[in-house]
Amino acid sequence: MTEFIPVGTRYVDLPSPFAMKRGGELRNAHVAYETWGELNAARDNAILIVTGLSPDAHAAANAANPEAGWWEPMLGPGKPIDSNRWYVICVNSLGSCKGSTGPATIDPATGDTYRLAFPELAVEDGAHAAAHVVRALGVERLACVIGNSMGGMTALALLHLHPGIARAHINISGATRALPFSIAIRSLQREAIRLDPEWNHGNYTDAHYPESGMRMARKLGVVTYRSALEWDGRFGRVRLESDRPEEEPFGLEFQVESYLEGHARRFVRRYDPNCYLYLSRSMDWFDLGEYAGGDVMAALARIRVEKALAIGVHTDILFPLQQQEEIATGLRAGGADAEFLPLESPQGHDAFLVDIDRFGPAVRGFLDRL
Amino acid sequence: MTEFIPVGTRYVDLPSPFAMKRGGELRNAHVAYETWGELNAARDNAILIVTGLSPDAHAAANAANPEAGWWEPMLGPGKPIDSNRWYVICVNSLGSCKGSTGPATIDPATGDTYRLAFPELAVEDGAHAAAHVVRALGVERLACVIGNSMGGMTALALLHLHPGIARAHINISGATRALPFSIAIRSLQREAIRLDPEWNHGNYTDAHYPESGMRMARKLGVVTYRSALEWDGRFGRVRLESDRPEEEPFGLEFQVESYLEGHARRFVRRYDPNCYLYLSRSMDWFDLGEYAGGDVMAALARIRVEKALAIGVHTDILFPLQQQEEIATGLRAGGADAEFLPLESPQGHDAFLVDIDRFGPAVRGFLDRL
Repeated sequence: MTEFIPVGTRYVDLPSPFAMKRGGELRNAHVAYETWGELNAARDNAILIVTGLSPDAHAAANAANPEAGWWEPMLGPGKPIDSNRWYVICVNSLGSCKGSTGPATIDPATGDTYRLAFPELAVEDGAHAAAHVVRALGVERLACVIGNSMGGMTALALLHLHPGIARAHINISGATRALPFSIAIRSLQREAIRLDPEWNHGNYTDAHYPESGMRMARKLGVVTYRSALEWDGRFGRVRLESDRPEEEPFGLEFQVESYLEGHARRFVRRYDPNCYLYLSRSMDWFDLGEYAGGDVMAALARIRVEKALAIGVHTDILFPLQQQEEIATGLRAGGADAEFLPLESPQGHDAFLVDIDRFGPAVRGFLDRL
Repeated sequence: MTEFIPVGTRYVDLPSPFAMKRGGELRNAHVAYETWGELNAARDNAILIVTGLSPDAHAAANAANPEAGWWEPMLGPGKPIDSNRWYVICVNSLGSCKGSTGPATIDPATGDTYRLAFPELAVEDGAHAAAHVVRALGVERLACVIGNSMGGMTALALLHLHPGIARAHINISGATRALPFSIAIRSLQREAIRLDPEWNHGNYTDAHYPESGMRMARKLGVVTYRSALEWDGRFGRVRLESDRPEEEPFGLEFQVESYLEGHARRFVRRYDPNCYLYLSRSMDWFDLGEYAGGDVMAALARIRVEKALAIGVHTDILFPLQQQEEIATGLRAGGADAEFLPLESPQGHDAFLVDIDRFGPAVRGFLDRL
């Protein structure tokens, strides 16, 4: 997977051993990150971005890598997250295959790839790793932590486990815990990979790779990342140019099917299946309520931030809107000046990646007021 | 599959040859059906039920088979569809494996199971077959046709292609055409079956059966048949009693996963995979708008029924509520006394099977007023 780590990615070594929440530890582990802008003399202009399951640390073009990143319209000079003002750090999640240590990394104890010997991964492990990066870069207190999707979980864990690490927080399409519909979807994605004989209990090779399982997992992901409303307008019932080969019964026929196929093709072999399984499961396990006897609202109220913004989207079926409302309400109960901002984006869970017209001003406005 | 046809199922032979909408024809084909109640002397008390993808014709207990059927609380003496008043016919869809001719039937021309040699199946073929059953049973004009889910499509095709066949219509969680989210879901279900090496281009056997593909298809179906809202209350984040075997990495852990597993186990090997593929695709293809130059509302307005009721559910993501509203609006434009009834059922698309407290009175009330 090394070839899919963006050029210019940098690394912070984690303390060794690095203890994992559910048991076990990592040795010689590291976290990949990139930065934008400059840390000021007061060291009070740092923003941390923690991501969803699949992104790398290359959120946008920077000096080390001028290629567009996955959040290009949001981050850079003059953009909503303005690198002329802010020193921005984006970390690649612990457990990912995009530079940070994970199941696709060589285990220094054996010299072999970890695969399923990687310890069980929790969202909290990623939060501790991110906190270590922040401090290694000379930042004691972030101006803001921004978490998208799974990163919304990571950010809440970080704020809870590292009190005072950030003055402000933007939670985008995140959640305090996984609910059963999302668990069901992710469970099916994992099952698709596990059922692929090429998965081979994690011991696949490039020549024998669980491509079918990964395709299915990714397609199901895309179905739940977008929305029916968006697709009604975007695809309707439009057919493909009819070059369906007769020898492929029940093959693709509608544009929406080809769209999913394109997404799947761009994803498989660029993401490690075992890393996918580990990170996917970590989301199902996450429950901030654990830290207050099962009471999510009480756990949120223990988080100390000055200002917060929880943004969600009406059409999100994976991290539904009430989960972001819950975050804002709970943080407010803890004394934060916390706003809940529901957006009318038609693009579902992925809207923050594409509906910059709505997300850009919301994020810019919040950061301007800090 | 013969062992899964309910006892007491009866059959009507279709005209031979029976021409199919998309080309080809069936010879010696038949449709399975059951009945409840008695046809009156005026022959004006008949109700036809057309079903979703998976049900057989045994909607409820009757003289021929006292076992509970799939719509037991709705149909029988004194029930919402009251067999003391109505003569009720339920047909098993053409193309199914529950008694009617379909891909799992022996092709009389070859003596072998049709499998993928079965002609392409359209919802309209099922509608024509159902019309033939109605007339073979001595009914020229139905008092009402009731269609659920896919059956809602079949009923609209029947009403359009056989003008005057019914005085009234109840459309439950149906649609005039498939929209891209539903197409995407069904496409993934079909892909899961097709990707299973045991599917073998339709040439599976009992010993080599595409069980993984069918399990995945069924689980994805159940995810979209129910709703996140229902599951939040029903499962939350409750774990299974912890007997997860260590040798099964990423195995089931939450109740919601076990619920899906149970559904999958009860379905696979009781439904023929090729029949599933054919019926699933027929839903994607269906578009009532075809009959009015692509204008669904115009096609609906050409349907002549006196009274109609379109019932939908807020939490349905597969046949969303606006599709039932569209049906009522279009039928009203055609002169019908048509009502749209949105229900607050939390159970999603499957609510009509389980939320009898809401569906029972709605159906009973409509039929009482006929």
